[in-house]
This record gives sequence, C-alpha cells and structure tokens, in this order.
Amino acid sequence: MKLNLLIPIVAGSLLSIPALAQHKQIQLPPEATEVWEPEPRKVTPGEENHLPPSDAIVLFDGSDLSAWKSYKTGGDAEWSVHDGIFTVAAGKGDIATKESFGDVQVHIEWKAPDVVKGDGQGRGNSGLFFMDRYEVQILDSYDNRTYSNGQAASLYKEGIPLVNATRPHTEWNTYDVFFTAPRFNEDGMLIRPAYVTVIHNGILVQNHYEVKGSTAYIGVHQYEPHEAELPIKLQDHGNPVNFRNIWVRKL
Amino acid sequence: MKLNLLIPIVAGSLLSIPALAQHKQIQLPPEATEVWEPEPRKVTPGEENHLPPSDAIVLFDGSDLSAWKSYKTGGDAEWSVHDGIFTVAAGKGDIATKESFGDVQVHIEWKAPDVVKGDGQGRGNSGLFFMDRYEVQILDSYDNRTYSNGQAASLYKEGIPLVNATRPHTEWNTYDVFFTAPRFNEDGMLIRPAYVTVIHNGILVQNHYEVKGSTAYIGVHQYEPHEAELPIKLQDHGNPVNFRNIWVRKL
Amino acid sequence: MKLNLLIPIVAGSLLSIPALAQHKQIQLPPEATEVWEPEPRKVTPGEENHLPPSDAIVLFDGSDLSAWKSYKTGGDAEWSVHDGIFTVAAGKGDIATKESFGDVQVHIEWKAPDVVKGDGQGRGNSGLFFMDRYEVQILDSYDNRTYSNGQAASLYKEGIPLVNATRPHTEWNTYDVFFTAPRFNEDGMLIRPAYVTVIHNGILVQNHYEVKGSTAYIGVHQYEPHEAELPIKLQDHGNPVNFRNIWVRKL
Amino acid sequence: MKLNLLIPIVAGSLLSIPALAQHKQIQLPPEATEVWEPEPRKVTPGEENHLPPSDAIVLFDGSDLSAWKSYKTGGDAEWSVHDGIFTVAAGKGDIATKESFGDVQVHIEWKAPDVVKGDGQGRGNSGLFFMDRYEVQILDSYDNRTYSNGQAASLYKEGIPLVNATRPHTEWNTYDVFFTAPRFNEDGMLIRPAYVTVIHNGILVQNHYEVKGSTAYIGVHQYEPHEAELPIKLQDHGNPVNFRNIWVRKL
Repeated sequence: MKLNLLIPIVAGSLLSIPALAQHKQIQLPPEATEVWEPEPRKVTPGEENHLPPSDAIVLFDGSDLSAWKSYKTGGDAEWSVHDGIFTVAAGKGDIATKESFGDVQVHIEWKAPDVVKGDGQGRGNSGLFFMDRYEVQILDSYDNRTYSNGQAASLYKEGIPLVNATRPHTEWNTYDVFFTAPRFNEDGMLIRPAYVTVIHNGILVQNHYEVKGSTAYIGVHQYEPHEAELPIKLQDHGNPVNFRNIWVRKL
Repeated sequence: MKLNLLIPIVAGSLLSIPALAQHKQIQLPPEATEVWEPEPRKVTPGEENHLPPSDAIVLFDGSDLSAWKSYKTGGDAEWSVHDGIFTVAAGKGDIATKESFGDVQVHIEWKAPDVVKGDGQGRGNSGLFFMDRYEVQILDSYDNRTYSNGQAASLYKEGIPLVNATRPHTEWNTYDVFFTAPRFNEDGMLIRPAYVTVIHNGILVQNHYEVKGSTAYIGVHQYEPHEAELPIKLQDHGNPVNFRNIWVRKL
Repeated sequence: MKLNLLIPIVAGSLLSIPALAQHKQIQLPPEATEVWEPEPRKVTPGEENHLPPSDAIVLFDGSDLSAWKSYKTGGDAEWSVHDGIFTVAAGKGDIATKESFGDVQVHIEWKAPDVVKGDGQGRGNSGLFFMDRYEVQILDSYDNRTYSNGQAASLYKEGIPLVNATRPHTEWNTYDVFFTAPRFNEDGMLIRPAYVTVIHNGILVQNHYEVKGSTAYIGVHQYEPHEAELPIKLQDHGNPVNFRNIWVRKL
Repeated sequence: MKLNLLIPIVAGSLLSIPALAQHKQIQLPPEATEVWEPEPRKVTPGEENHLPPSDAIVLFDGSDLSAWKSYKTGGDAEWSVHDGIFTVAAGKGDIATKESFGDVQVHIEWKAPDVVKGDGQGRGNSGLFFMDRYEVQILDSYDNRTYSNGQAASLYKEGIPLVNATRPHTEWNTYDVFFTAPRFNEDGMLIRPAYVTVIHNGILVQNHYEVKGSTAYIGVHQYEPHEAELPIKLQDHGNPVNFRNIWVRKL
C-alpha cells in the first residue's frame, strides 16, 4: 500500500525509478538525510581553548578555593592559594568539590613542586579523583620511572597511558578528561562501566578507557554501587603540587 | 549548487516541498532507506539451536578428539572419549585446538564430575581459554560457594557473572560465548581490548564484557601483545569434568 | 608448586622483598585477586535452555494474552490464541506489554504464516519493538530476498544481520535478544546509544550493535529522548505470524 | 586446599589474616598491583599544546603543501599557500595526504573565509575526511543555522555535535580528533565500526561516536569494506576556507 501511494508521487520526477524493480537505491534529494532537531545549544569557547567556555563551572580561577571543601572535615579547603595558583598543603588532607558530578569534561592544569625531591611515587604525587573513587594519577613523571600503571595520566593501578607526555617540573601540565559514570542494576551488579578519555598536554593517552573499579592502593580494583553524582577530589599525597585553571562541563 | 540542481527535480512532484523552506524533513519514498548490499550469506541452523549450524567448525561431535592436541607435547590429546562425550584425564594436561581462532562464537556443553568431591575451586574445575590466555571459568558452582570472580561463567579472576545459572552436577551446562580479539599497536600498547559475551544455560551472564588482560592465577591481569589467531584451550585442573557438543563459528 | 615457590617469598614478613628494589612484580598468594562480593544471586535455568528461567517474567506461556494490551486502544489484546500459540489477527493492530522495560533479555519464538504468500516485505512480516520504537525485524526471510537491512533479525532499516539464519516457514525461529536502553542528557542530546545483541536460532547475527535511532519506515533514524522504561511491542503487519514461548529478564 | 596451604605461610607475618577463613580479601603489599611493563615511550609535547608533539607527522607547518596531493589528479595540491596558512582554491578540487592512516589523532586549525557570504551549507563549507570517506564537517556555523547533522563538528549527515562551539569568522577554530578505523570480516560484513571523538575549540562535541558508514550527500550511510590505511582528505566545496597547523599522530 505504501509503495502504491508513493510511486505515482515520485514517478514523473527526475527519478522515474525503474531502479525500484531492480532493488537498487533510488536517487533522492539530499534533504532526505538532513536532521534539524535537536539544535545544539551555543557555547562560547574560552578566549583560548584552555580557558573556560561559557557553560563551564569554574572550580578555580586564581582567586580562592570557595568551590572546594576539606574532604575529611567538610570545612574549608585549607590548601595554599598564592600568585593565582594553589598548592597542596601537606597534611591538610584531600580537598573535594562542594558540587557533585556524573558525566563530565574536566580541564585541569598542574605543575610539579618547585623543588624536585624524591623518586618514583614520591616525586610530585597527587591525584584527580572522579566520583570520589576513580583516580587519574598526577605525578612528576618527567625522567622519573615508576610502575607504568602509576605514572602521570595513568588510571592509577589500572590503565597505562599510551605514551609519557609529562613536561619537566618547571612547566605546567594540562589534563583534559572526559569521564562517563558507571551504572548498576538493582542487584548492585555493574551494568555499564565508567569510561575515561585523557588528553595530556594535547596528546591522547587514554582513549575511551574502561575503568575496572574503584581505585585502590592495595588489592584488585572492584566496582561497588554508588550515587549517580559525587564530588571531584584532589589528593594530598604530601607533595606540594601546584594547580591552576580548573573548570568542568556537565555532559 | 547541488540544491539548485535538485529543487526543480523534486518540485512539481508530490512533494512540492514548501517544507524545505521551513527546514522540515520532506516525505520520501521508503526505498530511500533500504540497503540491499551486502546480502548476508545463508546459514542453516542446527536441527535444534544447540546443534552446529552449517558454517560451524565442529570441535567434538561425540566420536574423537581429532580436532585437538595435547597442549604440552603437541601430540595427541589423551583425554578419555566414551559414550559420545569426553572427560578430562587428570594429569594428562590441557588440550588445545589444532586450528587457531580470532573472533569466534563458541558453543560448548559441560557436566561436572559424576561424583561430587571437593569444595570451592576444588569441585569440578576446568576452563575454556580463548587465544591461549583468556579464561571463561568452568566450575561446579551449584551450591558451591567460591570467590565470585572464580565461579562458573566468570572471566576467571576478573569478571563476576551477572547471576549464578549453574545446573546441578547431574545435568549438562551450556556456554554460548562470543569472543572478539584484542588489538595492539606497534608500541605493543593495547588499542582495543578483547570482549566476551557469555550465555549460560540460556541466561545472559556476561554482556560485552571488556577483558582486562591475560588470565592469571596470581597477580593482576595485564595484556601482552600476541598473534591475531590462536588456539582454544581446555584446562586439566585435575577434576574429571565432562564435555560434549563443541562447535565454533568464525565471526 | 606455585605455593611452594611462594613460601619463601612471603614467609618472614612481607616487606623484605628484595624484588621490590628491582621493580619486579612480587609473587603473592593467589587470594590477592579473589573477589568475594557481590555474590551473584542464583537463577534456576529452564528445564531446557529456551524455557523461562526462575527470574523470568513470562509474557506468553501458551494460555492467554493477559500480559499484553492493544497498542492502539489500551484495551484487550485481540490476537488469536490457539493450540498453545498465538497469531497476529490482521487489522487488530499492534500489541504491547502491560509492563515497561529498560535493559532486558528477551526470548521469543515465531513461525511464519502457515501459507507462504507474498514476497519480500510482504511475506510473514511482523516486528519486535523495544521501548516502543527500536525494531528487530520479524520476516519470513527463508528464500525470500528483500533489502538486507529489512530481513529477519535486522535492526529494521538499520543493521544488517551478519548472516541469514532463518528457518523455513514450517519451523519455529527463536530470537534471544539483549537490549540496553539509551540515555539522554538534560539538553535532550544522546549521551549513550542503545545496544542490541541478537542470536537467531543459536547463531550470533547482531553483536553489541549500536542502535542509530528510532526505527522509521521512511526517513533517517534519529534518537528522541524518552522514558527509561517502556513497553515491548509486537507488530501487526497484516500477516498471520505465529508466536509462542515469550519471556524476558530485567538486566 | 590452597587456602589451607596458604594460611600458615602468611600467618605470622604482618597480616595474621583471620579474615581468610571468612573469605575476605587479605591485605597485601601494594606492589601486588604495580605493572611495570610495557613502559610508555616518551613524547615531548609541543611548546604549547596545540603545536605538534615530537612523534607527530606534520601535515602543514606554514611553508608548503608537500605532504598533500590533488585528490583528483594525484599531482600537486594546488591550493593557495600564503602568510603561513593555506586556503581552498575553489575549483582545484579536494586535496589528500600522500601518506595513509588508520587509527590517528589529528589536530587541525581552520578559519572561515574572510568575507562572510552565503547561508547554511553555503557559508564557509569544507570537510575533513578520514580514510577518504568519513567526514567531520567544517562549516562557518557561527550564527548560521543549517541542519544539525550538517553543522561544524558534525559527522556529516550523521552525528549531531553535543553543542555548537564555533568561533566567529574572524577567529581560528581547532579540531582535535581521535579516529579509530573500522574492521570487516571475510564476508565483507562490519565487525567493528569506526569511532570518532571530536574536541572543538577545547570543548567535547563528539564522544566516542560510532560512525554509521561512508559519508554520503545523498542517501543512507552504509559501510563498505576498504583498506586498513587510507589518506586524509580536505574538501574543496567552493568556499575559500583557511587552514593552518595540521599534524597527526598514529595511535
């Protein structure tokens, strides 16, 4: 029926469609494959690409840590803000965002401590945690061998980065990270894992990496069910790592 | 230009397309979204769904182990063939297919030893290995608690099955497994992980599971680069597990 | 043996481990990679694999259509139940489940009309719709050429099955389908597509296929945001296709 | 058995593990989850992130089009090089890289024509083609509505970008694209689709997008089997779009 209705419509036009009988694809106006809805909303990029676009939630713009709290106490984040950057205050503990996030794009810039000190995991160690548990490692991995799944831009104790793109300790590193949150069913079983893509200083180092579970220093990573949105966390690992220009976009 | 060429063609036809100006999708013959090539080749299913279809490579049809070799010696597979089935001959070692495989569908049926003996990993233990290293666990997990990532239909020491669908030791279990092989780049870095889907007795227990690396009894699973096609292996874990009706299809 | 090798390493306390200094992986007890929680709940498979397991929601067991309603009117499903099967009553319209579903495993058995009649899309046409919009095609594709993305086990007007595994019209076909629902963000943009795996008569024909959008007879498939759970639908395409033994499991 | 053997081994050490008997995970040295091989090779990032890193293949550094050829004739690429940039020479046809690529990271910068002219698809139109067929659209989409799946950063006539991040015609746009090539089996059936991630001016707009098939102006996109590596192409759509700073990295 539908065919009968349509044939007379098209016949007589350019198409004349003997093609149909031979099961060939008929030539059609290109408008047939245009999709007009939804229209993507407009976002104004930053003046330079590393600066926050118009829809970003700015987590640090150089002035203060008002978007953060102490992870342990829930009180003020007591890391050191100075010269438009902030620095881990060893012993003050991790800091976490006041806001919670699920699927996000994160831009963060970090620089190893001013004085090179320690080796391996002991040199310029911090970490960027998604959902309070999935860690992208921050480490001064410039000329500083450690285990491959623990170097800068690794999913800590999980995913080895494709290459080592770390800049020397006098330069700022950037991470652009796309994180999508995991899903669990009613049994608490994992239905969809988390994924992470990491670009380190403009270089792809984790490409749609499937996260294996909650980051653990000791033992195998396992998933455990959790909320759909949770804070982002930065780690106090005892080294005065520097940070600046942090922003996120909800995906 | 293309638009100009097409508008006169279509205008005057049924469409008359004032729609175009309003950016609406024009109505088109349904043939526009028909795709005729390639034509999927015909496969005749088995008389029943668990029997080998016409394009299957049969690895055991009840008669002999001619498709298999001893994994250790490369000589004959010395497991015991009897009554149209075969049974692990403890101490004879693993057996491997003579043919190599990359992406495959595997159907395999197994039954726990006739006498229930041992506990946990000690009861009815064997394993189905893809590419000589990625193990789908075979275990008598009926009323036999062990670690969740080591029970029947787990990716051994990796992926917990969604549910426990094991039949009692007097009944045959079936696995239908879809395996896609991993890829590595020239640096030996993993570009695409392996994936496994497992249906246990008709029940989905692993859904497009991303394999973490080579199965290991001890230590964290890691990928190491390997050939594109490798044998399938069955494990001698010292328990007289029974097998029948094994076939594969190259995907 | 592995255990014996481990004794000297681990005994005498963990931390002397000279291996450490050489950056080698230390040998550890195999328990280190056991994961005991969560424990998968037990499901009793059907007596045969195609019969409903203990956690299935049975949509048709041969007796009546009480799990279904008329899609158009919302009233009773008026298809014909007889001899333990049911048959499309041409003109009565589609039928839909009373219950809604998101991620599901579906088992369904269908048989072409008793009399072979018509060609191409006109022969034994029906359809299995997930979430009221994503169609796995049902068609008598045995010796009945049509467009490849419209034959049995295609994602209709989208995904061509890997092979044609259709049985002749005198035999029952089975589909085992694993469907995972799409997700949309607050803008209504697609964040995660739907996926479908289809096993046709025991043969893998769609492997974690990414659905392109809502099935459409005319025009390009596009996603539109919708609820997280929606009914499953069977299509009245005017042909007396037969059904039996339908069950689903929520994933 | 293994448990019994291990308890005495580990007991007496730091852990004392009564946990074992209750099937809990034993505490182990953190070294157990360190992975030292492979060691990611070192890559020196560009002085700024948008500049080519040490392992990049530079396709345009401001001087000449020696990395490119005319797509139609295979002879010299005849687009206009000036002021450290190059510009589409309308009518000279598409240009393609001399080298072929499979999985790649691509950085490209483009700017709409100096004079704003035309509307919709007619304004500042070009395209970045992977493998000679998969197009990421280039278009002056700043205040220039067209169909959503045809605007800047769309997979042309396929994938709508998550947001519209286009800069005005006086500014340079950047695309950072991660492309992974599709795979086909011996039947010519698609085994693994292509994926594309696109970052537009620092903003994620395509996240591991599954490509539907070869880009087509008319008709539905379908896959057809092709070589594992093929040139990258830039489109002459008749508009003098400007380009600079193009580099790729093989993944």
